[in-house]
Amino acid sequence: MTLVTVGETALRFSPPAGHRFETADEVTLQTDGISSTAAATAHRLGGDAVWVSKLPDTPLGRRVVAALHEHGLETDVVWADPGDGRQGLSFYEAGAAPREDRLLQDRTGAAMATLTPGELPMDRLQAADVLFVAGSMAALSETAADTAGAVLRAMPGTTALDLDFYPGLWTAERAFETLSDLFDAVDVLFARERQVEAVFDTTARPRELVHAIAADHGFETVVLTRDDHDVVAFHDNVIHEHDAIETETVDVTGQHAALVGAVLERLVGGAPLDEALSYGVAAAALTRTMPGPLTPLERAEVERLVDAQSDGRP
Amino acid sequence: MTLVTVGETALRFSPPAGHRFETADEVTLQTDGISSTAAATAHRLGGDAVWVSKLPDTPLGRRVVAALHEHGLETDVVWADPGDGRQGLSFYEAGAAPREDRLLQDRTGAAMATLTPGELPMDRLQAADVLFVAGSMAALSETAADTAGAVLRAMPGTTALDLDFYPGLWTAERAFETLSDLFDAVDVLFARERQVEAVFDTTARPRELVHAIAADHGFETVVLTRDDHDVVAFHDNVIHEHDAIETETVDVTGQHAALVGAVLERLVGGAPLDEALSYGVAAAALTRTMPGPLTPLERAEVERLVDAQSDGRP
Amino acid sequence: MTLVTVGETALRFSPPAGHRFETADEVTLQTDGISSTAAATAHRLGGDAVWVSKLPDTPLGRRVVAALHEHGLETDVVWADPGDGRQGLSFYEAGAAPREDRLLQDRTGAAMATLTPGELPMDRLQAADVLFVAGSMAALSETAADTAGAVLRAMPGTTALDLDFYPGLWTAERAFETLSDLFDAVDVLFARERQVEAVFDTTARPRELVHAIAADHGFETVVLTRDDHDVVAFHDNVIHEHDAIETETVDVTGQHAALVGAVLERLVGGAPLDEALSYGVAAAALTRTMPGPLTPLERAEVERLVDAQSDGRP
Amino acid sequence: MTLVTVGETALRFSPPAGHRFETADEVTLQTDGISSTAAATAHRLGGDAVWVSKLPDTPLGRRVVAALHEHGLETDVVWADPGDGRQGLSFYEAGAAPREDRLLQDRTGAAMATLTPGELPMDRLQAADVLFVAGSMAALSETAADTAGAVLRAMPGTTALDLDFYPGLWTAERAFETLSDLFDAVDVLFARERQVEAVFDTTARPRELVHAIAADHGFETVVLTRDDHDVVAFHDNVIHEHDAIETETVDVTGQHAALVGAVLERLVGGAPLDEALSYGVAAAALTRTMPGPLTPLERAEVERLVDAQSDGRP
Amino acid sequence: MTLVTVGETALRFSPPAGHRFETADEVTLQTDGISSTAAATAHRLGGDAVWVSKLPDTPLGRRVVAALHEHGLETDVVWADPGDGRQGLSFYEAGAAPREDRLLQDRTGAAMATLTPGELPMDRLQAADVLFVAGSMAALSETAADTAGAVLRAMPGTTALDLDFYPGLWTAERAFETLSDLFDAVDVLFARERQVEAVFDTTARPRELVHAIAADHGFETVVLTRDDHDVVAFHDNVIHEHDAIETETVDVTGQHAALVGAVLERLVGGAPLDEALSYGVAAAALTRTMPGPLTPLERAEVERLVDAQSDGRP
Amino acid sequence: MTLVTVGETALRFSPPAGHRFETADEVTLQTDGISSTAAATAHRLGGDAVWVSKLPDTPLGRRVVAALHEHGLETDVVWADPGDGRQGLSFYEAGAAPREDRLLQDRTGAAMATLTPGELPMDRLQAADVLFVAGSMAALSETAADTAGAVLRAMPGTTALDLDFYPGLWTAERAFETLSDLFDAVDVLFARERQVEAVFDTTARPRELVHAIAADHGFETVVLTRDDHDVVAFHDNVIHEHDAIETETVDVTGQHAALVGAVLERLVGGAPLDEALSYGVAAAALTRTMPGPLTPLERAEVERLVDAQSDGRP
Repeated sequence: MTLVTVGETALRFSPPAGHRFETADEVTLQTDGISSTAAATAHRLGGDAVWVSKLPDTPLGRRVVAALHEHGLETDVVWADPGDGRQGLSFYEAGAAPREDRLLQDRTGAAMATLTPGELPMDRLQAADVLFVAGSMAALSETAADTAGAVLRAMPGTTALDLDFYPGLWTAERAFETLSDLFDAVDVLFARERQVEAVFDTTARPRELVHAIAADHGFETVVLTRDDHDVVAFHDNVIHEHDAIETETVDVTGQHAALVGAVLERLVGGAPLDEALSYGVAAAALTRTMPGPLTPLERAEVERLVDAQSDGRP
Repeated sequence: MTLVTVGETALRFSPPAGHRFETADEVTLQTDGISSTAAATAHRLGGDAVWVSKLPDTPLGRRVVAALHEHGLETDVVWADPGDGRQGLSFYEAGAAPREDRLLQDRTGAAMATLTPGELPMDRLQAADVLFVAGSMAALSETAADTAGAVLRAMPGTTALDLDFYPGLWTAERAFETLSDLFDAVDVLFARERQVEAVFDTTARPRELVHAIAADHGFETVVLTRDDHDVVAFHDNVIHEHDAIETETVDVTGQHAALVGAVLERLVGGAPLDEALSYGVAAAALTRTMPGPLTPLERAEVERLVDAQSDGRP
Repeated sequence: MTLVTVGETALRFSPPAGHRFETADEVTLQTDGISSTAAATAHRLGGDAVWVSKLPDTPLGRRVVAALHEHGLETDVVWADPGDGRQGLSFYEAGAAPREDRLLQDRTGAAMATLTPGELPMDRLQAADVLFVAGSMAALSETAADTAGAVLRAMPGTTALDLDFYPGLWTAERAFETLSDLFDAVDVLFARERQVEAVFDTTARPRELVHAIAADHGFETVVLTRDDHDVVAFHDNVIHEHDAIETETVDVTGQHAALVGAVLERLVGGAPLDEALSYGVAAAALTRTMPGPLTPLERAEVERLVDAQSDGRP
Repeated sequence: MTLVTVGETALRFSPPAGHRFETADEVTLQTDGISSTAAATAHRLGGDAVWVSKLPDTPLGRRVVAALHEHGLETDVVWADPGDGRQGLSFYEAGAAPREDRLLQDRTGAAMATLTPGELPMDRLQAADVLFVAGSMAALSETAADTAGAVLRAMPGTTALDLDFYPGLWTAERAFETLSDLFDAVDVLFARERQVEAVFDTTARPRELVHAIAADHGFETVVLTRDDHDVVAFHDNVIHEHDAIETETVDVTGQHAALVGAVLERLVGGAPLDEALSYGVAAAALTRTMPGPLTPLERAEVERLVDAQSDGRP
Repeated sequence: MTLVTVGETALRFSPPAGHRFETADEVTLQTDGISSTAAATAHRLGGDAVWVSKLPDTPLGRRVVAALHEHGLETDVVWADPGDGRQGLSFYEAGAAPREDRLLQDRTGAAMATLTPGELPMDRLQAADVLFVAGSMAALSETAADTAGAVLRAMPGTTALDLDFYPGLWTAERAFETLSDLFDAVDVLFARERQVEAVFDTTARPRELVHAIAADHGFETVVLTRDDHDVVAFHDNVIHEHDAIETETVDVTGQHAALVGAVLERLVGGAPLDEALSYGVAAAALTRTMPGPLTPLERAEVERLVDAQSDGRP
Repeated sequence: MTLVTVGETALRFSPPAGHRFETADEVTLQTDGISSTAAATAHRLGGDAVWVSKLPDTPLGRRVVAALHEHGLETDVVWADPGDGRQGLSFYEAGAAPREDRLLQDRTGAAMATLTPGELPMDRLQAADVLFVAGSMAALSETAADTAGAVLRAMPGTTALDLDFYPGLWTAERAFETLSDLFDAVDVLFARERQVEAVFDTTARPRELVHAIAADHGFETVVLTRDDHDVVAFHDNVIHEHDAIETETVDVTGQHAALVGAVLERLVGGAPLDEALSYGVAAAALTRTMPGPLTPLERAEVERLVDAQSDGRP
């Protein structure tokens, strides 16, 4: 039972807590991509997962793979010549309220933009029980968008997509236009509240939203992470709601990706959606207690939180 | 429309968060002075500002100027021979409640103590629309106090003074005696609640205090930052109150200086006091979300907070 | 008036805040042992205190002593040949709720396990007004447990023991069996709520618990730190309760040890238990505001908090 | 007497000494560009210098300017909208022999690529006594190459160009083709041995090379930094040779740029070439003793080395 | 064509360069074991390699595996219950001449000491083309020594052993006695000069030594790294000598392990010994230019050095 | 057999290696004073030593004592009220040749300047076998100079003085005038070549210099550290010369103080001068291999170097 995820992963630079790039002399380096974080989370929870992507064969591209391997994740990477595409980068300053976070995208010309279906291990993809694609991949180029579509359409198993929409990458209009072309090939849609509002240009309440989106686009399942980290899902005509677990939050980044990874790991294993969401909510909570978008959470502590949720304990 | 500020700026050493000098091996180095922080804040908000001071021509003196230049601030510094005055220093341990902050002043013999009016670019000062003097300057020596008085008295434009009183520098009695000699030349008085209580030896409530001080000493305007960061001001027989903006506070130091800088930048530009105080409260809030007394806040985010205040949004 | 404490002290390694060993490249090094932290606290509060232990004559053993000397504490150490015992180690990952702390004990074969009464400066121990033993010492070996008993029994003065129970060192059953053999030689018992529940296998409410334990085992005094840092004590048929002082907590480790040190320093000085507990609660609060189990608190600030408590101030 | 320099400046990321990006978690951030380093060096030596460039109005672009301001350098920057160009980046791993240095260029799409003459403060440029252009600017786009040409041709004063050739930016063939179009407008050519060999496709000995290049392209002066940091120049039919000063080298990057800045500062001041080269060799030596491409060298110590050179002292 | 290596790998703690544990507050954490470093080196050079070992299922054991995975190495680990064995540790202070390095072994009770053949994936081991065992494994316990013997004897392919002798682990006498029992099952012996002198109790010159050892114990091949990093080997009645490549040395640890890994990778691939030694010498040189015992060297730069050696270039 | 040393000890701030204060954000904090370093070295070598001084009762003063206690040194400090004297400071930038070191003295108004004989534990001083005074103490004030004289004259045992001359503290003329008043009470004079040249205004060769100084001022012994770390001494009409031990030098500061401490420790123990100098040269060499002026050298490694010297080994 295998999960395969496809998407771009950027190197993310951040100044020390509270500082800004303008006056920073040292920055930390992390990997940031929903497809790789979700796969790594699924692997850490015991699942069989592999991340598929295209990276430049440079120290920066190798840095991405080394970071994922450190978590034990299997990767299947198409290596581009250094001249044929950059390593996608992002620059993140965490704010402290009321100062806002800042995320500068610098992914133009990323190697992933030139990925064609012919470069991919399609047999391996088609053997996956669940295939997940990060919607941001489609922002990089028409080629990448086409490849995303080809991959989703070629899948005999379950397909999942995350909107993974970021303003610095493309406009909401272009995102909707491009991604809605893929929707018919997608079974499960993941999204964050703010992103779904932008892409679907709506201010509907989440409970109604998940229903409406599923109905309009024929998704089997829609899973939405709210701004306060609660989760609302729609599946089989039922609304599922899971409250976020309260945390001493260290870093919010990566928490939605961890949820996606944990949910997919459970779904691959055949669990019902409610169990999957419980795992997702627990993985997201643990991720918020550690710095960076990719965190070394462990199966046993996810399960402890899942049990505590069902017991009504904190 | 120009703001000129005059005062001493110390190098401030601090151990890492939670640590103490007693067992620290590494300390951070920052610049700390209300006159330079206020000017830098005004500059960052788009104003035309220059900082005037006297520093020793040593690596430490040059460090102060380099840090201010990093923020783009223009400086006009009288350089003292290394033998003619030290670099003023301060040593700061941030407490965590109920452990108190500690601020050790080490400014005796600072180069600024020997500053005479003849060394100053008086034409430039007199051309300022607003001239601001830090009261702590007068604590350094009789010479410095006389110079502060001479500068304030020579000004055709608006003059502003901050009490800037610190127990380690001089006693409240001496501060009152010395500073009250300057009051007749001052239009706008800035102060922090705790300092005003000490120097004016009063426990009156802030609303009454600002009125009383303005009346007693003939200030046009009095602006008081309360211990909880709220602001109370008196001007033209009216009390102006602005609540502090709630923040995830990283470091409280410098927040009053940022307020002063933002208020002055607005006043120089001809804004009414209420608008100026809104900017001041916003700049102070942002400064609390970043470490150190001198922070890289930006005009756009100050304005966002100003707008949010007037909308009643957080 | 002298306090002598006996026990093991480990070197404690920790990854940076929020991080885990699994992906850490740098770790901090601290000393961690209730006997040394309590003695150092008593010394910092002005008491006459000495720490007695056995350490390997290696860079790691010398590291422990250097850290205690840095706080001015006098030590009387039996130095073991490197081949005759290791330096006890512990590995600590601080959690952020709901992620739990992790404490990995690695003390098997510690030099302290071979400590015999004959190696100890027994005259010095017997001259102590109060002798304190850390119960964890008895977990290391039968020899160490016997030595703990011999030391406690040989004392003419007051004797104190802390359960100092950690699951990774021994089972609760073995701890109870071994430590209860020592109880008849102990006047004052210190313990933490969680530890007392495990070792005495009880879920009684703390108020009843301290009474029951004192009655069952003939302790003059029992002092219990609750999970929320409140303190409950039993002495002379009276229950004493002291609420914890609210803190901006940086690190909870060492807070109970600081309480023990402060209480003992007062008791050695002849203070009544309530005063001693006030000092203990204040020392514990200050320790929570600094990182690591051994913190540079100062007598003056402990006294300020003691006064504030009695005034009902925060 | 003013020096104006024009060129791109990248943000340079580097792992800690000896480390590689593949396994690095923290990297340092510095600014790296011959035009800005040369101008900052000239300013530090007491000259009147300004750096002219185009940067994106993002935290990264502001970081570049803040770093230059920290050195007191005046800048005149055209700010591009974030969507109209990236901040150029470079990624540098210093090798230890026989392991080679690595420099990864990531400047495609830099804001500077869209710079047109119309955006530039041409009056200011034309008022310069010496105008310096970094050849790498021409690698970014045809537009930038045209602008470089327009700027050089519009100058009434002395013009200088550095080949500033990097393999990752363009091929040696394209560099030669593009830059040779500019040569007729250039009075002084600077270059590094390795770069001149690549661009002019020659293996001639430096003494002959500087002569030949000057003759072939009509330069008044050619200044070449050899791989061992010796300098060979040709001017007025005379070969000038200056040996490098021996140093405990900390970081070689930026040493040629410092030489260019010091030589230009002297030439602007009217000094003969030999004096200028002495200053250049001294500035280069000091730069090698400090980390990063932009170092806080001081006029007095440059002069001490210049004097020592002429005395034959080390 | 596969290489399998078997041995213990410790976590190594080190204070910052020049510092000592006695006064260190921060230490770095690295993995240190010839079996894992050799396998990782072979993998980085393009070989098919796997590391087999036993580790405790604790954060420390997982740290070892994460570090190896970061280099892409495949691992096949027997996980011990935390109570059934510790993570082996070492504490290393690098000296600066004439101050000596210090290496404190703390491996008593390591999980590896309980490894039995039955726990191992024997089919996988037997399928290896070359199986490598680290001699230090035999120091941990009789069980581990027996397992080392059983593994070597069960191998149909080539077997290799490194003396890997450290004074803190066992005596030279015990090492000789235990390891010489294994020699008849070993085809290739690796050793460092200092270790071979201790274990074989000899002061013969290396050229004679490799011959004598091969003759006495029936090794096909003996490879000896000298103190100055030159290599002497004996094979098929021929002495092979390879001079060390001169390096700007950052850290000597791990350089012999890298040599072993590179030599084995070549031998697995069927290369003649001289080619294998060239690769080994190059890998060792690169490892000395990076900190820590496990370094991210790359195949292309090893090959560049191999080519330079054969060209007589540096 | 006891050594007592008297003198000031400063807190020394330094930017990271290669950096300068002008652009530094973090600095390290160390204690720097020949009297405390010499005493700590003597203690580490097994001697009975105590350091006597006057410090302000502030976090900075306590920092000095904590650092010395960390090395196990006993201190006997007169604590001044914070208002009665500052903590002496120094600011040190290590150069890399040809860039020179920089040492900025900031000791004006140090607490030590007000030290009177009446504050000192004179009984303890008079019971010393050797009393050492740092000449820099006399630079702080007339009071301190008088106290230095009173202490030296009251001593029944051996007295030693180091010139300890720094240009930033006083002029060579004033130093000579003041210190030469003390010479008649001094048995052993220590000095560094550069300092002796300045204070005695001489360019005589060291061999002649030690003789001449001893003859002129009636010293029993004169010990001179040369710029290249060789040592020349004069005693009983004999010149003693000891070559420096070659080292991989990390930091030269403190090396002369370590020599003084080791020499005094031997002399207190009754060793002949040549043995004492051997220990001194060895301690100085080890100190150069560690950062900072106060290093954790160990008796065993000093003795190893002493033995190696007498064997003619490196």
